[in-house]
Amino acid sequence: MKTIDGGVCAAKGFSASGIHCGIRKNKTKRDLSLIYSETQCSAAAVYTTNLVKGAPIEVTRENISDGFARAIICNSGNANTCNADGRTVAEKTCCILAEELGISPKDVVVASTGVIGQPLDIEPISDGIPSLVAELSKDGCDSAAEGIMTTDTKKKEIALEFEIGGRICRIGGIAKGSGMIHPNMATMLVFITTDTAISPDMLRKALSGDIKKTFNMLSIDGDTSTNDMVVVLANGMAGNREITEENDDYKAFAQALNAVNVSLCRMIAADGEGATKLLECSVSGAETESVAKQVAKSVICSSLLKAAMFGADANWGRVLCAIGYSGAQLDVNTIGVSFKSHAGVIEVCRNGTGVDFSEELAKKILLENEIEILVDLGCGQYSASAWGCDLTYDYVKINGDYRT
Amino acid sequence: MKTIDGGVCAAKGFSASGIHCGIRKNKTKRDLSLIYSETQCSAAAVYTTNLVKGAPIEVTRENISDGFARAIICNSGNANTCNADGRTVAEKTCCILAEELGISPKDVVVASTGVIGQPLDIEPISDGIPSLVAELSKDGCDSAAEGIMTTDTKKKEIALEFEIGGRICRIGGIAKGSGMIHPNMATMLVFITTDTAISPDMLRKALSGDIKKTFNMLSIDGDTSTNDMVVVLANGMAGNREITEENDDYKAFAQALNAVNVSLCRMIAADGEGATKLLECSVSGAETESVAKQVAKSVICSSLLKAAMFGADANWGRVLCAIGYSGAQLDVNTIGVSFKSHAGVIEVCRNGTGVDFSEELAKKILLENEIEILVDLGCGQYSASAWGCDLTYDYVKINGDYRT
Repeated sequence: MKTIDGGVCAAKGFSASGIHCGIRKNKTKRDLSLIYSETQCSAAAVYTTNLVKGAPIEVTRENISDGFARAIICNSGNANTCNADGRTVAEKTCCILAEELGISPKDVVVASTGVIGQPLDIEPISDGIPSLVAELSKDGCDSAAEGIMTTDTKKKEIALEFEIGGRICRIGGIAKGSGMIHPNMATMLVFITTDTAISPDMLRKALSGDIKKTFNMLSIDGDTSTNDMVVVLANGMAGNREITEENDDYKAFAQALNAVNVSLCRMIAADGEGATKLLECSVSGAETESVAKQVAKSVICSSLLKAAMFGADANWGRVLCAIGYSGAQLDVNTIGVSFKSHAGVIEVCRNGTGVDFSEELAKKILLENEIEILVDLGCGQYSASAWGCDLTYDYVKINGDYRT
Repeated sequence: MKTIDGGVCAAKGFSASGIHCGIRKNKTKRDLSLIYSETQCSAAAVYTTNLVKGAPIEVTRENISDGFARAIICNSGNANTCNADGRTVAEKTCCILAEELGISPKDVVVASTGVIGQPLDIEPISDGIPSLVAELSKDGCDSAAEGIMTTDTKKKEIALEFEIGGRICRIGGIAKGSGMIHPNMATMLVFITTDTAISPDMLRKALSGDIKKTFNMLSIDGDTSTNDMVVVLANGMAGNREITEENDDYKAFAQALNAVNVSLCRMIAADGEGATKLLECSVSGAETESVAKQVAKSVICSSLLKAAMFGADANWGRVLCAIGYSGAQLDVNTIGVSFKSHAGVIEVCRNGTGVDFSEELAKKILLENEIEILVDLGCGQYSASAWGCDLTYDYVKINGDYRT
């Protein structure tokens, strides 16, 4: 498995584009993106569990209920959520795009991200679709990745090459997500393409299994969005024998999918709203996988710990506190905690009690921009990781006046 | 029922004191408080559900397991949590105080608040106890309220007078709590005294029933502390017939207890770390009380909404979003939302969809320092309230470097 260029265009037969169509006021920001496959794809998706759902979620769910799709269209600047005519706008978007591409409207995945509760005009979208389609290209991934950004400060894309039965396969993805990120069974927006041949059933299985270890272990601010969506399109153009059961080929694919998802998780966490640091909590020594996950996620979600990490303060008591209220059943007297970064590693707690440590070294470690919080529960062999970011002045600034 | 002066000293037979004994470095800050009753009291308490518990919690739980107590001692500046000798220090504190007061160590409630995981020396406490006892007085409530403060900016005290069977009874309380506040079955530190005659069983029942509607509906930052504790002492000196069943006298007492607890909740929320505004979410029209509570608490906990309130931004989409991920089963198409303050009230969402409103008036309403978020679920007759505060630069500042 190796990293390659091209993002969602790395897989054979996929092209992409991104333009400014006028939904966002700032004309230098792209606000409409398209990903397109030359041939029909197996399609799988997971969605937000928030009861308040964006209209595009309903429409996409129906469109890919047959397990197939060919195009993904996504706008930023407006979530098309809590609007009386939201569904109509999402359906029209699919129809106009489908006509321009010469495909069925039922093969279009539609997504929106941005402010909730402001009507979304169809005009800029319908006016923009002809040039969006005209600009489709193998080099279009950067533009597409830009077109789905809201408060993100960095494009998020990745692509990998791997082998199935002697055939080279490719898989790549783009993501957006910076605030309102606390995925639960689904997540912000992630679009993944692959040329692996895989049946819709196996694709769904691979995606829903992996999500639990990746995007569901990510939290920026504890707020589960209304528009979360992860979609994978697989067009089979790599020419491998189609994966239709959980064999070695399936495992190879699942491993590549996991590598893409972990990369995108880390990129999203590092670019969390206002973040200066990527935080990763690695829990080991748990009695069950579920305990490991509960603990990792609880630590990564603690506002107090997030603020301490911003201040490079080795306040390990807050790690213990977050473990204690995680809801997991565990023995607090066997817990060990260390902080780790490129600058080194330092043990701060053993058997649930503080150990003497150098505040100077701790500070040096915590001043780095990628911090690993190592928690050893000391009573089993299961482990899990969760990703998040620090809580900063800029998070408050960005969210104190986002809408107006 | 009317408000009176005196806090925890308002009830007959109670006195209090607070001194600087040397746990905190700043000599102008009191760090040790005492509340004492002339006679034996019925005692009831609820504690944090965090698995990581402060040593004082264990000791207090054992001491009042018989339903009785006479004194409460509490230090600030150190939580005495995750320390190898924590239990010994808490027990010694009880013994030294009991000897000085001439009571049994088993009648002492001990509590600590402050940083987790730093050893607590017994010396400043044992050295301080003689003057702490010497300074006990009917005017000591202010000093006691100060001695339990950490990052609090304001003392929190309240007292009420009410009638049971023709007898005047008094109830009063003090509280501390500013960060790490997301009570679950218990809360930060709250000490309540009353001269009502009530059996330990009935006192426990009244307290544990009321907590669910008051302190468990309060959240500053989503972090459940390791040292939460609410204690009520009732010495019976009002001379009412002892309450031993759920009769009208019980109801009168429960009502007074609720009024004290709601007052303290509002004071704690308004003085949340870094807060500039008290937020109250009042949910009505719910199908069950549990739905009303889940929704109210989810709204009050949303970091995004808290930041929007700091920015006086009427971003009601974030209210809908938080309702949607609350976990409560409900119909999102009947939800109505309004914002209310001393400056007026404004409807922003009806039937799950935005309504036109004056941004100018909304801004004026949200610039006040007490904001009510009114949510009508439109499908039942149950209601609930939750309290919290806005998320500000100062929350990050306070918690970015609290320990060092």
